[in-house]
Order: sequence, then C-alpha cells, then structure tokens
Amino acid sequence: MKETEIQQWIQDFYKQRGWSDYGPFERIAFLTEEVGETARAVRAMEIGRDRPDEDPQSAEGLKQDFIEELGDIMGNVFILASLYDVSIAEVLEAHKNKLSKRYNESIAGGQS
Amino acid sequence: MKETEIQQWIQDFYKQRGWSDYGPFERIAFLTEEVGETARAVRAMEIGRDRPDEDPQSAEGLKQDFIEELGDIMGNVFILASLYDVSIAEVLEAHKNKLSKRYNESIAGGQS
Amino acid sequence: MKETEIQQWIQDFYKQRGWSDYGPFERIAFLTEEVGETARAVRAMEIGRDRPDEDPQSAEGLKQDFIEELGDIMGNVFILASLYDVSIAEVLEAHKNKLSKRYNESIAGGQS
Amino acid sequence: MKETEIQQWIQDFYKQRGWSDYGPFERIAFLTEEVGETARAVRAMEIGRDRPDEDPQSAEGLKQDFIEELGDIMGNVFILASLYDVSIAEVLEAHKNKLSKRYNESIAGGQS
Repeated sequence: MKETEIQQWIQDFYKQRGWSDYGPFERIAFLTEEVGETARAVRAMEIGRDRPDEDPQSAEGLKQDFIEELGDIMGNVFILASLYDVSIAEVLEAHKNKLSKRYNESIAGGQS
Repeated sequence: MKETEIQQWIQDFYKQRGWSDYGPFERIAFLTEEVGETARAVRAMEIGRDRPDEDPQSAEGLKQDFIEELGDIMGNVFILASLYDVSIAEVLEAHKNKLSKRYNESIAGGQS
Repeated sequence: MKETEIQQWIQDFYKQRGWSDYGPFERIAFLTEEVGETARAVRAMEIGRDRPDEDPQSAEGLKQDFIEELGDIMGNVFILASLYDVSIAEVLEAHKNKLSKRYNESIAGGQS
Repeated sequence: MKETEIQQWIQDFYKQRGWSDYGPFERIAFLTEEVGETARAVRAMEIGRDRPDEDPQSAEGLKQDFIEELGDIMGNVFILASLYDVSIAEVLEAHKNKLSKRYNESIAGGQS
C-alpha cells in the first residue's frame, strides 16, 4: 500500500469515528503523547523496567510496542497534514529536497 | 516513490553523512526537537507572531515551514525505525491493524 | 520548602538511587516521556476516556494524576539543571528577567 | 523568592499580557515547543552546530540559552498548573511524596 493510500485510509477512518473534529492544538497535544510513549518504548528496550508500575515484558513484546508507537506518531502526522490539506507525498518530497539541498550546500561550503 | 524507497533513500543519506552513529536516546531527543518545531509552525499559522524574536511571514511561507517540520518528524521516525531494523511498511501495517482492531472492539462493546 | 531545598533533596535522592548516571540525551528522553504523560492527563480531564485501554477515573483521581505528571516534569527539569551545575533559583530568575525584558521592549515598540 | 511568589508573579504577568486566554491544549502545545527548544539547547552544548542554519556560539552563550529554555518550561508548567488552580508548592510536595513512596516500596520489595 502506498503512503497516499494509507493517508486516505487513516483519514477516512478518523472521519468515520468522529475524530476529525479536533483542532490543530489538540492534534499537537496528541502527537506529544505519542512521542512520549515512543520515548518510553525506547527506554523499555534500552534500559528495561525501572519503574515499579511497569511489568517486565519479552523482547518481542517490547519491539512490538515500539512499532505501534511509531505507527501512532505517523497516524498523527498524517491527520495533522490532512488538517491543512497537505499530502504525505508532498511532505516526503519536501524532506528529500531539504536533505539534498543541505548536503549540497555543505559540500560547497567545504570547498570554498 | 513508495515509502520503503524513501526510507532506504533517507537511511543511505544519513549513513553517508555520518549521522547514523547517534544512539536511540539522541534520536528521541532529535525527534523531540522536531515535534517542538512542528508545534511552533502550527502556532505561527493559527495564532501568528507573538514573540518579538520572530519575523512575520507570508501564509505560503508558514505552510511551507509546517510541511518541512512534518518531513523532519517523518525522517526521524524512519531513522529511529531503521535503528531497530524495522521497516516503515511494517509500522504502517501495524497502525492500520491496530485502528481496525480497536474499531471492531468498540463496535462489539457497543452491541453487548 | 524553598525550591533550592527541593532541588537539593531531589538531587540527593537521585544520587542515592543511582539515577544520576544518565547523560543529557537520556534526560531529554525522560522529560519527553513526562511531557507526553502530562498531555495524556490533560486529555483525560478535558476529553475523557476515548481509548479502550484506559479505565474511567474520578475527577479527583484525574486531577491527582495531572499534579503528579507536572511534578515529574519539574523533577526532570531539576535533574537536567543539576547535570550542568545550574540551580533552579538561577533558572527562575532568568525566566523572570526574560519576561520583564520582553514586556518592556514591546511597550517601547508600541510607543515608537 | 519562593516558588509560590514566582508562580504568582508569572501568573499576574501572563494575565496582564492577555496570555491567560489560551486553553489547556494550546498550553500543552506551547510546552511541547519549549521542551523541543531545550532538546536543541542540549544538542548545541553536547554535539555542537550541525545545521547550516545555526551560528556557532560561545560556551557561555549556549549555557545561557539552556537556562532560559529550562525557565520557559517552568513558566509553562506554572501557567498550566494555574489553569487548574493547582499551586506549584502542591506539585513539588506531590513529587517528593511520590519519590519517597516509590523508594520505600522498592526497599520493601528487595527485602521480601
């Protein structure tokens, strides 16, 4: 499935559930939650359980959690983009161009 | 370009630049930076300039900033996934499955 | 208890537990977790439970969670400051000065 | 200046400027910005400039930036607390109690 199809699918899903009504600041707050949970998933894999309220988990389970949290970030990014009529293809293209441009500038800077 | 090609491209780019050496906590910290800049881009579009250190910008420029920040988040998510040998296709699939499952559960819950 | 005493107490506590060994990027990642949990606590109070994995809670319990999350952010800020030999008194003073200065500039800007 | 006085001062300052009108999700989004800027300040101190859009800065300047960003986080935490009629003294007390309790539990757990 291409990223544009995924964005469409997620967008439709959110609309169906009535989750599309939240504004941009709610969206940023939800994204902040997911990034926090990703940080927690990384900590669980790297450092392990150091909080009494967390059960130990298998390596496989920890990695699955991590994958889900990354998915939640991407879902939030897709919905945030949709809020401003921005397609994910556009976002990825812009990122590729930005990296390429930065790289060329630093090459040029190094030669001068 | 499919998301797997983009992930490969970004991964190669990072390797070439020597940016692949950072560990998972550095990656989370970089992701935190980018999410903060996305929050700033959204504020700039929604509320406008309310800080003396920020110049006013055209609506088009503000939207372009927002697109770039979303791209930076995605780039960071791609690299973080690569660090654990996780493909973006896998992440997106997991997210779709999670949403579908949650939806079905809540339907079933509503019927009981 | 004054904020400097609290910082000292928290610093001692962390040292005793062996939590002082984490570097700055781990600290930023932990802070990111806590900010995410604060976002979740705010969502729980404002929007309520909309995730099947979360139990409903009393208003009092939700507020208590929120207070604890804010405390976790402050604890992390204190430890991050300590890592660079910065006192919280210094941080608060700098913030007050910054706000005052910004205010005066905008007054001056408005008069010209 | 005690932390309660600082909270009062910051609260009054925000009210005067009309910044008190923002709701909880805007507040979380602003906090997300500041945490991102703190992550950036830490990166600047630890890794240095690796982005072409950033000027090199003295070690003293970098540390000053870091202190200001921590102050911005604390200012945001204070205002977020005020939004729910929570005092910073209460937040710090709760954090201290939580740490103490967790410590005692883990001691007890270790003995059993």
